Amino acid sequence: MRIKVVRLSHRLFRDQRITTHCALVSRAFGADGFVYSGERDTKLEATTRKVASNWGGRFSCEYADSYMRFIKAWKKNGGLVAHLTVYGLPVQKVAPKLRKLRKPLLLVVGGEKVPPEVYQAADWNVAVTGQPHSEVAALAMMLDRIFSGRELEKKFPKARLAIVPQERGKRVIRK
Amino acid sequence: MRIKVVRLSHRLFRDQRITTHCALVSRAFGADGFVYSGERDTKLEATTRKVASNWGGRFSCEYADSYMRFIKAWKKNGGLVAHLTVYGLPVQKVAPKLRKLRKPLLLVVGGEKVPPEVYQAADWNVAVTGQPHSEVAALAMMLDRIFSGRELEKKFPKARLAIVPQERGKRVIRK
Repeated sequence: MRIKVVRLSHRLFRDQRITTHCALVSRAFGADGFVYSGERDTKLEATTRKVASNWGGRFSCEYADSYMRFIKAWKKNGGLVAHLTVYGLPVQKVAPKLRKLRKPLLLVVGGEKVPPEVYQAADWNVAVTGQPHSEVAALAMMLDRIFSGRELEKKFPKARLAIVPQERGKRVIRK
Repeated sequence: MRIKVVRLSHRLFRDQRITTHCALVSRAFGADGFVYSGERDTKLEATTRKVASNWGGRFSCEYADSYMRFIKAWKKNGGLVAHLTVYGLPVQKVAPKLRKLRKPLLLVVGGEKVPPEVYQAADWNVAVTGQPHSEVAALAMMLDRIFSGRELEKKFPKARLAIVPQERGKRVIRK
């Protein structure tokens, strides 16, 4: 199943670490690519690409001038859209439907203010708990529920670095 | 099952949002309290307490001068310790053991550099994937696996605010 994540309205100063975490979670939890809009951030892009090239697998990181144009183009090309928002329907109810999709899925991660047209454009508005917490956690949980936990076993081919799990201490293989 | 989360070596400037997300994820995903060490951060504490008082349930937020002293005291009082680290054993292997515990559990979320004594003091070193991503996502997934997804249905008594899930749009009840 092909999944991309789009993060709206990135702010260079305030959001750098949160958006970077969203990008790395997207990759680690099995999405194919990350797109962001808002302020262009070359450091975010460099970090994400460096992680992808060191730790393997295929993963893209792109900038979109207009997220609304990106979302509309995605739908026009036959893709579906799930928007992560605390106001949406519980992930545990929506995920079984998402798992059966045979079309590419775009996960939308909001920014500071998400306009009503995003809620309207989304095929699903999805909440991970109805409590305030974190878009990073919501994104990880959403991907986990779509992949039914199999993302934890995902292999990343052509990695230069790989970790060998240890009871205590650290073991990294350099290839 | 009683669970607290401790975040090590918080830095006021760099870590504020990430640590706040860790605190809010701890609460939303069913932990009883959050402790942090490093630089004291009154804004982090105020945000966490305000969320807890508005959105209900019982949740504590505390500062610890020395995280090592806190961890040692926790163990001395009969508690167990699981340290989240990318170098540890896969969460899908460790979680079944954690679910059966009849003792309080402390989840340790690292900071910039985690010294070997934390790996040694931990009863389990646990990884959520062997890939670099986010302590916020790792914490959410760890709690999700311990509570087997039931945390998503958790009720928060005495809330002043509560969300009513919607297909589209926003609905918040003020009590």
